[in-house]
Amino acid sequence: MQTVYVLNGPNLNLLGVREPEIYGRATLADIEALCQNLAQQFGWQLRFLQSNYEGALVEWVHEARAAGAAVIMNPAGCSFYSIPLLDALSTLETPYIEVHLSNIHARDAEHQHSILSKKARGVICGFGAHGYELALQALQRMLNAQ
Amino acid sequence: MQTVYVLNGPNLNLLGVREPEIYGRATLADIEALCQNLAQQFGWQLRFLQSNYEGALVEWVHEARAAGAAVIMNPAGCSFYSIPLLDALSTLETPYIEVHLSNIHARDAEHQHSILSKKARGVICGFGAHGYELALQALQRMLNAQ
Amino acid sequence: MQTVYVLNGPNLNLLGVREPEIYGRATLADIEALCQNLAQQFGWQLRFLQSNYEGALVEWVHEARAAGAAVIMNPAGCSFYSIPLLDALSTLETPYIEVHLSNIHARDAEHQHSILSKKARGVICGFGAHGYELALQALQRMLNAQ
Amino acid sequence: MQTVYVLNGPNLNLLGVREPEIYGRATLADIEALCQNLAQQFGWQLRFLQSNYEGALVEWVHEARAAGAAVIMNPAGCSFYSIPLLDALSTLETPYIEVHLSNIHARDAEHQHSILSKKARGVICGFGAHGYELALQALQRMLNAQ
Amino acid sequence: MQTVYVLNGPNLNLLGVREPEIYGRATLADIEALCQNLAQQFGWQLRFLQSNYEGALVEWVHEARAAGAAVIMNPAGCSFYSIPLLDALSTLETPYIEVHLSNIHARDAEHQHSILSKKARGVICGFGAHGYELALQALQRMLNAQ
Amino acid sequence: MQTVYVLNGPNLNLLGVREPEIYGRATLADIEALCQNLAQQFGWQLRFLQSNYEGALVEWVHEARAAGAAVIMNPAGCSFYSIPLLDALSTLETPYIEVHLSNIHARDAEHQHSILSKKARGVICGFGAHGYELALQALQRMLNAQ
Amino acid sequence: MQTVYVLNGPNLNLLGVREPEIYGRATLADIEALCQNLAQQFGWQLRFLQSNYEGALVEWVHEARAAGAAVIMNPAGCSFYSIPLLDALSTLETPYIEVHLSNIHARDAEHQHSILSKKARGVICGFGAHGYELALQALQRMLNAQ
Amino acid sequence: MQTVYVLNGPNLNLLGVREPEIYGRATLADIEALCQNLAQQFGWQLRFLQSNYEGALVEWVHEARAAGAAVIMNPAGCSFYSIPLLDALSTLETPYIEVHLSNIHARDAEHQHSILSKKARGVICGFGAHGYELALQALQRMLNAQ
Amino acid sequence: MQTVYVLNGPNLNLLGVREPEIYGRATLADIEALCQNLAQQFGWQLRFLQSNYEGALVEWVHEARAAGAAVIMNPAGCSFYSIPLLDALSTLETPYIEVHLSNIHARDAEHQHSILSKKARGVICGFGAHGYELALQALQRMLNAQ
Amino acid sequence: MQTVYVLNGPNLNLLGVREPEIYGRATLADIEALCQNLAQQFGWQLRFLQSNYEGALVEWVHEARAAGAAVIMNPAGCSFYSIPLLDALSTLETPYIEVHLSNIHARDAEHQHSILSKKARGVICGFGAHGYELALQALQRMLNAQ
Amino acid sequence: MQTVYVLNGPNLNLLGVREPEIYGRATLADIEALCQNLAQQFGWQLRFLQSNYEGALVEWVHEARAAGAAVIMNPAGCSFYSIPLLDALSTLETPYIEVHLSNIHARDAEHQHSILSKKARGVICGFGAHGYELALQALQRMLNAQ
Amino acid sequence: MQTVYVLNGPNLNLLGVREPEIYGRATLADIEALCQNLAQQFGWQLRFLQSNYEGALVEWVHEARAAGAAVIMNPAGCSFYSIPLLDALSTLETPYIEVHLSNIHARDAEHQHSILSKKARGVICGFGAHGYELALQALQRMLNAQ
Repeated sequence: MQTVYVLNGPNLNLLGVREPEIYGRATLADIEALCQNLAQQFGWQLRFLQSNYEGALVEWVHEARAAGAAVIMNPAGCSFYSIPLLDALSTLETPYIEVHLSNIHARDAEHQHSILSKKARGVICGFGAHGYELALQALQRMLNAQ
Repeated sequence: MQTVYVLNGPNLNLLGVREPEIYGRATLADIEALCQNLAQQFGWQLRFLQSNYEGALVEWVHEARAAGAAVIMNPAGCSFYSIPLLDALSTLETPYIEVHLSNIHARDAEHQHSILSKKARGVICGFGAHGYELALQALQRMLNAQ
Repeated sequence: MQTVYVLNGPNLNLLGVREPEIYGRATLADIEALCQNLAQQFGWQLRFLQSNYEGALVEWVHEARAAGAAVIMNPAGCSFYSIPLLDALSTLETPYIEVHLSNIHARDAEHQHSILSKKARGVICGFGAHGYELALQALQRMLNAQ
Repeated sequence: MQTVYVLNGPNLNLLGVREPEIYGRATLADIEALCQNLAQQFGWQLRFLQSNYEGALVEWVHEARAAGAAVIMNPAGCSFYSIPLLDALSTLETPYIEVHLSNIHARDAEHQHSILSKKARGVICGFGAHGYELALQALQRMLNAQ
Repeated sequence: MQTVYVLNGPNLNLLGVREPEIYGRATLADIEALCQNLAQQFGWQLRFLQSNYEGALVEWVHEARAAGAAVIMNPAGCSFYSIPLLDALSTLETPYIEVHLSNIHARDAEHQHSILSKKARGVICGFGAHGYELALQALQRMLNAQ
Repeated sequence: MQTVYVLNGPNLNLLGVREPEIYGRATLADIEALCQNLAQQFGWQLRFLQSNYEGALVEWVHEARAAGAAVIMNPAGCSFYSIPLLDALSTLETPYIEVHLSNIHARDAEHQHSILSKKARGVICGFGAHGYELALQALQRMLNAQ
Repeated sequence: MQTVYVLNGPNLNLLGVREPEIYGRATLADIEALCQNLAQQFGWQLRFLQSNYEGALVEWVHEARAAGAAVIMNPAGCSFYSIPLLDALSTLETPYIEVHLSNIHARDAEHQHSILSKKARGVICGFGAHGYELALQALQRMLNAQ
Repeated sequence: MQTVYVLNGPNLNLLGVREPEIYGRATLADIEALCQNLAQQFGWQLRFLQSNYEGALVEWVHEARAAGAAVIMNPAGCSFYSIPLLDALSTLETPYIEVHLSNIHARDAEHQHSILSKKARGVICGFGAHGYELALQALQRMLNAQ
Repeated sequence: MQTVYVLNGPNLNLLGVREPEIYGRATLADIEALCQNLAQQFGWQLRFLQSNYEGALVEWVHEARAAGAAVIMNPAGCSFYSIPLLDALSTLETPYIEVHLSNIHARDAEHQHSILSKKARGVICGFGAHGYELALQALQRMLNAQ
Repeated sequence: MQTVYVLNGPNLNLLGVREPEIYGRATLADIEALCQNLAQQFGWQLRFLQSNYEGALVEWVHEARAAGAAVIMNPAGCSFYSIPLLDALSTLETPYIEVHLSNIHARDAEHQHSILSKKARGVICGFGAHGYELALQALQRMLNAQ
Repeated sequence: MQTVYVLNGPNLNLLGVREPEIYGRATLADIEALCQNLAQQFGWQLRFLQSNYEGALVEWVHEARAAGAAVIMNPAGCSFYSIPLLDALSTLETPYIEVHLSNIHARDAEHQHSILSKKARGVICGFGAHGYELALQALQRMLNAQ
Repeated sequence: MQTVYVLNGPNLNLLGVREPEIYGRATLADIEALCQNLAQQFGWQLRFLQSNYEGALVEWVHEARAAGAAVIMNPAGCSFYSIPLLDALSTLETPYIEVHLSNIHARDAEHQHSILSKKARGVICGFGAHGYELALQALQRMLNAQ
């Protein structure tokens, strides 16, 4: 049975509250519900996790690697400097898909270029909560094509 | 009836032939078929166009603006320097979604940062031909939400 | 009889429609009328042209060169990267005057420095449609002074 | 009753021991005493916290946000790269005041520009332990003025 | 009655003498005569001033602000570093038009980008003494349009 | 008897008038009153001066040096380029404290980094007129500690 | 029979007229004659083309690719920014040789580094019209060596 | 009795599994065995620790400082941005030796320059697991020389 | 009779007092005496001036130009940003020699590169007060050689 | 009788051995034979020299200058930093032609831009040993045209 | 029998004399003795050489290549710019190990990044003369592992 | 008896021949005569040397160090990159004075900033052959002052 990790980085526990004009009104629980729903359709086991600690994200990527699970991640603030996360993603043999709620390319200098994107199979940004669903669909197509 | 322009930039007429290890084996005609199929499901009129001339892309964006049509574009090589295309996209009031077949963030320096992305509602890259379908789905969700 | 080319770059066909808070409400036809009016006063033949294709602008500069005509140009989006247009302007022996509707120095990084300005006798920016009239007056003074 | 979080970043648990010629001889406990004393005068509840984990600082900012508390922070080494902390501070609606014990502008390149300062109402640096007191006074004036 | 300040920065007292191949042969007195002449036509009071002291230019901008006067300025060498002049211009509510005798965009690196231009409504450069007349005409059009 | 110079750079004579959303509504006279009041409490002689001329600021720093006086300065626009002021501050043996009304770290690129800060014992920015009072308090603590 | 495309970029239609001290006095027709002459000796079919439109150059590279033809190109002004042309050259499996009439390394900053050179087997610059002949000779040696 | 901390940064728990062509096939347990063996020879107590959390590394450096222990560290991904770790190392009075398994100078831009190296007495990189042994030998020589 | 201006920039009135380990113990009066002495030997009239105002230095250069006098200047802090002084020096037809007391190339980044040096015939730095004498000797040789 | 120096820089004595996939299999002796052969045809005396010492190359350029000889050089590793060689080439009045065996524009950052190229009449790179022959042909054409 | 070249770059003949606080008191002869001693233990022939000429170092690397010898080098001042040495090292098929006496990462900007390190199997810096011994040990381990 | 080394770098053997409009008409022998003449007056032994090899210059600096001699050097092209020469100069305890014939600050980018200047007591540039005499005079004053 296919396992998928959906990881969420720092501050995403505040979703729906923080800067809704940028990030939308859906909470992280709402997004998990959308994802579990699709996972059920695809017959996947989905682990949905959030942490404000870079170290925790690194270790969940290790877990996914050990479990042969694919990874979808919204690395949030860790996107822009975390070499440990970059290194952890380098160890994955399963696909990694990166999601950002807002269009980071239209934001300020600090939030414009994710250094993690180069390790992704694909990147989806700017579609809010729907971006997670698109990522799951893209992953399914990818896994079917193998 | 909703109209959508799906625009394709320089060299995309070679799709399926050129560097298939990067861009995949689908031809542009294959991609148009996928798109027309989805458009039909959504009840949209879809214009699918390609040009190797920046000027032609600029004018199709003008046409879309005049028609109140949304725009999905894979600007290809024009992504990286075309201020005229950037300016044309600034005039749109309908959504613009940017698609790249490969994950441009993992490519060489010249192909890493699209200057057009900042005008997009969202960006999808790295999923090959499937990326166009994801863009159409994202657009549909966006239009329904208005 | 003195001939003057007034050239207009990409997206200027949308004038009066696009971002009026930046570019004003005059259409390109309105501006041509202002220019023809002044040209008539000065006893000049004036060719007023617009294209969204860099190649067309290059060729009109060649035409002007061949005709011994002066050039007034609003290169719009081509101002910021077009080496072919820079090279074409280098071949002119008649005066070239550059016009921008908005004050480009107050805009974003992509629109701040025209690489073509260094080939101009003079540059006028920020005065909207009136800038074209000022350019024609400046040109007349310049030609009288020769 | 007004609540104030006084947060302290990595290595500040060593205060009074580490590089006293730069940071002075006061320990973190000494500084807390100064702060609690002033807080009592102002009739505030003051939470004084230190962590060597960026993630803990992020979560304390979240707590402060939830409690409607103001934040005074000496982010120490996190000042110079932590986008997660920058994002957490962006969610605050209460004032944030930044304090540095030493004058960071006079230090080496790595310690010269705090990327968090742009989210502060005000910044105080170079006054050692006294800087915390100045920050509390400044905060009191700010809150009275609302 | 409309008042206009025409301000001239460092070294412009040498006009007509210094590097005539760049700046032309008109003296500053010649330029004042041209300006007073036009001002009379427009029914304006015109103060024409020059200083080699940045401080004096700052204070004349203050005077203009207090008098509700528009400002035309050739900031000369102050264009390239003077933040005090930039700040003074930020306080103006009346229009500011910037004039340069030579085409600064065609000069060496130190003289290529005026940091003051971003505060101008419009900029005119490269037309020698005639540029002042064009600026006055542009200002008149601007004031009439209000 | 301790003497303190409180120096104010270019454009600060306009305080209370210019951009009140950034600088607040207190005039420079209001700020002097606050400062003289505290100076009286501390038993200090306080000279409060403003100039739009960098040269005057340099000479007041020389005066302070000769008088063994401490210096508190809001260098305003001179903060960002004035090497003469930097050099003058290097000659002081008494403390120098830098004050900015607004949080300069949150402003545009030209106003973000004061080159003078590295010569200060401490820097206080973002607290409006109150920042001067905080600086005087900090100075008093500093002098008592010697 | 071996086919060779000799492509010429923007402004090269002016050869022999424009800046002869840099580009020499040979016209493009003269250069075509030199090339056809050598092609005849080598038993090759040679297509000699010029355009001021980047899009046309892109499409001629596509034609060459389809015909299995080698390409010699003087990309002129397109050398310095055209990613579409770079991408088109990437699709070639036949040799591409780049020619510049002048020694671009000795020119100004805008004309110093061709981004297309990295796709060439070899580059020849600074020998005027003779450079085309050298390129044809080099190509012949290259094809014989396969 | 001399105590030595051997610290290991993020992702090193995966050693022997992750990218063996870069990092070799020895596991972290193998490396600990090598180190404990040498420590026994030298009569040292050796604490061998790994964490994916920057905060944990910081606190172990604090522990080492308190214990008067020397530190050998392979900071892995933290080498390239962690100012908190840099600050922690600044507090050490005992020697710090930095070890990297691969030759980081031969890797990609993100992994090329450790900002922590400047705090080391010496750096050893590129010798795989053997590098830890070399570091212990170097430390022993250093301690004997004191 | 040959006239020579010896100009001294900001803070040089403090010579002999300020940072003697960098600038030496000679006062400005001492240096003037050395210069007047040599001038007398050479039969020159020497004007020796100092100002903390950039504007005054600019005007003394104008005076020198009008008098056909040579200029020796130690521009001190103005060396590093003053475009007005650079422009004033450009108007001189007589020689300009630049002197610095300390070896500026060995100082910190702000004091390392004088933008005025490019207008000098020659530059002498690092020899303290003696540098003025060397400059006068060099000038004498230069004038004799004409 | 025309003399030509063909100079070869560091490491070229290893040709045919070192990295043949980049530099080809011809030895330096093979290349000399090709060159002497052509020189004989042209009636020239040809000196073919190699050194691993920058100083020797400098002195051979001096010799060539003294002899009125033209210079063809493959400066190899000296291309990228040697100002002495740049200065030596500046003294030549005869033509200098630069040759590189590989296409340096397609190599890594250290080997991409020869600082010597700006002193060449023309540059030929990427054609292996044949490049020397092309250079001799180009030189012959150049000398005939004088 | 294994041969090893131990090469030493410019100024190392002064070891023990020059800046002992940075480089230690051991002379180059002392270091050679340490190295010959270890070489004898390992049964190796060791050539220990020093030159102040880059060209000599290049040629010794060529010799080592021809002899199938490994290379340990302290390139000293040549580390920071010598492309010829970089190219020579690229031709080696035997291991190259780089040694620096001081920790170059803690030195000034000119001495911080060796461009040669990227060609090394491993780098050892900061351990003074002992670093050579560590390098020989590392080499022995490396050769045994083959 | 005081010994002085006067060292001359690459290409200076061509003096009087090469680019006389920049370097003047005096030959190196003429300059030696001027220097020996002054040395005789001062009672010094003067060694006047030139080499096109960086290595020779390094070794002459070593000789000077061993002899306790002062060094005057015109490092010519070595000024701009030679770290070995920089390191050699760092070992001198006697004064080093740098001389350039032309005003390097007025030259092109490659020739503008000598990295060796920071090791000099003083620098003299732009006075042609006379600069050597000024350097000897400055040295004499320096030695007398000790």
